[in-house]
Amino acid sequence: MSSKRLSKLTTALRNSGIETLALNPSPSLIYLTGLHFHLMERPTVAFFTTDSEPVIVLPELEMLKLRDLPFEIKAFPYGENPAEWDKVFLEAGQSLGLKGKRIGVEPLHMRILEFNKVKAIAGEAECPDATQVVGSMRVCKDHDEINAMRSAVGVAQEALKATLPSIKIGATEKEIANQLVTQLLRHGSQPDMPFAPIVSSGPNSANPHAVPSERKLQAGDLLVVDWGAAVDGYISDLTRTFAIGKVEDEFSKIHQVVQEANAAGRAAAKPGIPIANVDIAARKVIERAGYGKYFTHRTGHGIGMEPHEDPYARGDNMQLLEPGMTFTIEPGIYLPGRNGVRIEDNIVITADGAECLSDMKRELRTMD
Amino acid sequence: MSSKRLSKLTTALRNSGIETLALNPSPSLIYLTGLHFHLMERPTVAFFTTDSEPVIVLPELEMLKLRDLPFEIKAFPYGENPAEWDKVFLEAGQSLGLKGKRIGVEPLHMRILEFNKVKAIAGEAECPDATQVVGSMRVCKDHDEINAMRSAVGVAQEALKATLPSIKIGATEKEIANQLVTQLLRHGSQPDMPFAPIVSSGPNSANPHAVPSERKLQAGDLLVVDWGAAVDGYISDLTRTFAIGKVEDEFSKIHQVVQEANAAGRAAAKPGIPIANVDIAARKVIERAGYGKYFTHRTGHGIGMEPHEDPYARGDNMQLLEPGMTFTIEPGIYLPGRNGVRIEDNIVITADGAECLSDMKRELRTMD
Repeated sequence: MSSKRLSKLTTALRNSGIETLALNPSPSLIYLTGLHFHLMERPTVAFFTTDSEPVIVLPELEMLKLRDLPFEIKAFPYGENPAEWDKVFLEAGQSLGLKGKRIGVEPLHMRILEFNKVKAIAGEAECPDATQVVGSMRVCKDHDEINAMRSAVGVAQEALKATLPSIKIGATEKEIANQLVTQLLRHGSQPDMPFAPIVSSGPNSANPHAVPSERKLQAGDLLVVDWGAAVDGYISDLTRTFAIGKVEDEFSKIHQVVQEANAAGRAAAKPGIPIANVDIAARKVIERAGYGKYFTHRTGHGIGMEPHEDPYARGDNMQLLEPGMTFTIEPGIYLPGRNGVRIEDNIVITADGAECLSDMKRELRTMD
Repeated sequence: MSSKRLSKLTTALRNSGIETLALNPSPSLIYLTGLHFHLMERPTVAFFTTDSEPVIVLPELEMLKLRDLPFEIKAFPYGENPAEWDKVFLEAGQSLGLKGKRIGVEPLHMRILEFNKVKAIAGEAECPDATQVVGSMRVCKDHDEINAMRSAVGVAQEALKATLPSIKIGATEKEIANQLVTQLLRHGSQPDMPFAPIVSSGPNSANPHAVPSERKLQAGDLLVVDWGAAVDGYISDLTRTFAIGKVEDEFSKIHQVVQEANAAGRAAAKPGIPIANVDIAARKVIERAGYGKYFTHRTGHGIGMEPHEDPYARGDNMQLLEPGMTFTIEPGIYLPGRNGVRIEDNIVITADGAECLSDMKRELRTMD
């Protein structure tokens, strides 16, 4: 698979006018080569050009990872002394004749650590943003990628079902999060998950990016659970909101509004329209109900190898939807200091509409 | 605690001559402020100077994280449209008068994404490497930090003990890794662990950074388990090697050599000496046994909030050890295509020597 992607990359590089790409350990590197490296203090950078085999500069102790690759790659390994690394990087650059050439990078993933090495190779030439080179290849998922995501959604849903008995008055957010992670592993998630689950209750649920705390669930709380699994390098990212005992009428109401917004977003998604329309459709439901200013984020984001990637469901994003694009629909209403609701599903654009990969009950379920 | 660290930072900034520090979501940001943010496509950067309260540019939906902080911070939140972000960053820079000022950064953590915003604020001024500003504060751990690491070692050891029944002929590396993660959570690790466990058997164990595979354990294998837990934001990082059934005499021999190298490294560690001496002491044992060229990495690395941090136990590192420094001792021998051994402990430098936080049996244990 990687050989095929590498030959597509050559075309993408030519079309971009950038010609050379430098990647540090990142989803795009895995996508192209299957190579996993830790992001650490030892810089690892692979260079891709249109006319030579790829080159990689890496720690000597990672060399075994290059065995049995289905394509040729020229390695420039270095030892443990950082004083020697610059020289090895320059040799790698010379072998590809990169001095004075523009070398494209991915600003979202490359650190200054690696960027300094790349700039030293490029010399006076600029290092442009090349996010769209591999990004344009990754944004539409193929059959195998969608199947992996389907599995990741299945694992996540089964794991939450198995965690439901732990969701009860008196349980802490952390206890529920730990139980959920245990169940994710038991049901087949990779240990390196896309993100730690968000389990936020009561006032904490009004913070979209809360971290699970020692707070105990109380009657009257809403409980937001935002979680995902990873299967074969692809992820899921779902959210459901629960009522703990009897909750205020307004909390039930905002849940209903968010559920309708989620449905409207899913219904709007289809090929050929700007993804902005998905955001607008979901947001309109919440605005009409009078809660527009409490929906403080975009309606969704692409998912695949990364928890957030293209395409982003924002009202200003005119990117056209295409079959194979995969993203979240996750409207929310957050009442500061009180409670919050979010309902999140994962969809894939099909030839004539969209398929929702997640099917777990969205209605407000009461636990106590 | 954070207020105290912020006042120490002012002194560290003055001493460094850099005066201004920019941090993206990173261990140093958590260390100084307690603030956790996901590293994502929305850039978050905090600016610290010697004469004003800190400033932070962040997504509006993260604003709730700033409530109840024990210090003042001036927030510049931005909305979901990336086209507006540059303006907000420039306003934040203006509020601190940073135009033309040198703004220090941490190259190991800051991405080009955030660096571009920082450079736009600094204008013509360079953005120097300021790693040592917070690094010098973090490298010697205080009582609470060491206690958290002690707990993280305890959790890891208990988790591996609970996983031992899963280590048997026919089990896959992935099954053992999943069971180990489950036990880490059950024994009290945070879900966001320092790294996914390495469980590598037979020829895979000769790769120091192997990823758990579907390979089944076979009689005659060595099995390397490299794992850790996280407690209160601090981590442990241990390795033990097992024999699966009867192994070749040479494998038992290299295990014995590595065990002696580990002991020599631990014995060498004390305040006032260069950390290089620790590497040299461990390496000498392996070299004398004739396996020097198969010990392909440094003897250890600092640990604390990060899986790898200062100080690094390399033969060329003349950094002097001080009480409170915490690092791994992890010599290994890797016979390519055959098998590998690593034995890793976590130590803390004390007033007159070193304390080993880990005490799990190091002898080669046979499982079948």
